[in-house]
Amino acid sequence: MPKGVDQTESLKRLQRIAGQIHGLQRMVQEQRYCIDILQQITAARRALEQVGLQIMQRHVKGCVADAVRTTHGTDKIRELITTIERFVQ
Amino acid sequence: MPKGVDQTESLKRLQRIAGQIHGLQRMVQEQRYCIDILQQITAARRALEQVGLQIMQRHVKGCVADAVRTTHGTDKIRELITTIERFVQ
Amino acid sequence: MPKGVDQTESLKRLQRIAGQIHGLQRMVQEQRYCIDILQQITAARRALEQVGLQIMQRHVKGCVADAVRTTHGTDKIRELITTIERFVQ
Amino acid sequence: MPKGVDQTESLKRLQRIAGQIHGLQRMVQEQRYCIDILQQITAARRALEQVGLQIMQRHVKGCVADAVRTTHGTDKIRELITTIERFVQ
Repeated sequence: MPKGVDQTESLKRLQRIAGQIHGLQRMVQEQRYCIDILQQITAARRALEQVGLQIMQRHVKGCVADAVRTTHGTDKIRELITTIERFVQ
Repeated sequence: MPKGVDQTESLKRLQRIAGQIHGLQRMVQEQRYCIDILQQITAARRALEQVGLQIMQRHVKGCVADAVRTTHGTDKIRELITTIERFVQ
Repeated sequence: MPKGVDQTESLKRLQRIAGQIHGLQRMVQEQRYCIDILQQITAARRALEQVGLQIMQRHVKGCVADAVRTTHGTDKIRELITTIERFVQ
Repeated sequence: MPKGVDQTESLKRLQRIAGQIHGLQRMVQEQRYCIDILQQITAARRALEQVGLQIMQRHVKGCVADAVRTTHGTDKIRELITTIERFVQ
């Protein structure tokens, strides 16, 4: 993960997700309605997915593109697809 | 979310997820390798999914089952399916 | 899966999905642009998800509700959650 | 989608998925147990995901790598990430 705009943006998003998890802990402690808790869990998962996609874009633009330019990038591409596979499930 | 064993278990899991998010913040700050960050994101999403499924099971055993016993439970079942739909995506 | 409106609806949806898969086979044979193929795959997966959710709703309204009324329904609920877990991933 | 080994492999997989959909139609017609139908739906979705990942890998190795070598590939990478985003959900 290189320094810069994207790093700051990812950290902001993770800060917000930390807040969502904290909110979830409070909801469970206060025995709130299950469906409301489940919606908040879905929101946090979606937010994690978004930060993941942002980091993936950065990775393709940086590491994968560099590998493609200097070698065939075959290993980096295989590694990327394996990561997407785990991410998808 | 009723009090009891499940509540304690959910809180433990959320505590662990809060730790994973904290770890992610550190990984991004330290500019760790993107693929390692993405694997940690996948792990946190999977953990959120697990706590969600646990709460869903509790909800079906409690609220939905009660509604089925006293009325037809049609509304509670529709609400459950809508929640699963959002959860799945 | 009981007979009736839902069965007919599920069969219609599956017929449409069979058409989407057939379309995908043609797209691959004609060497169409990968991104277009991937979008069609996403559409077919989403359609399968929808027919799955419809069948799940039917199952909760029927089998699970019956089990809850006659016994505690514990086994049926556990089976449902396990199925949702696989479905989610 | 370029001609070759991958195309043949994708077509084989899609043929198998077409068979799974046909099997699902029969299961619904025969009013089989919902949970069994849902497991078959999950299997078909997983198989579609696999063929999608295979096509994605081919796309990154071909189109995206070419774009990265001749230009910065920025547009192709953005298009890829948008496609992954839809695919993930």
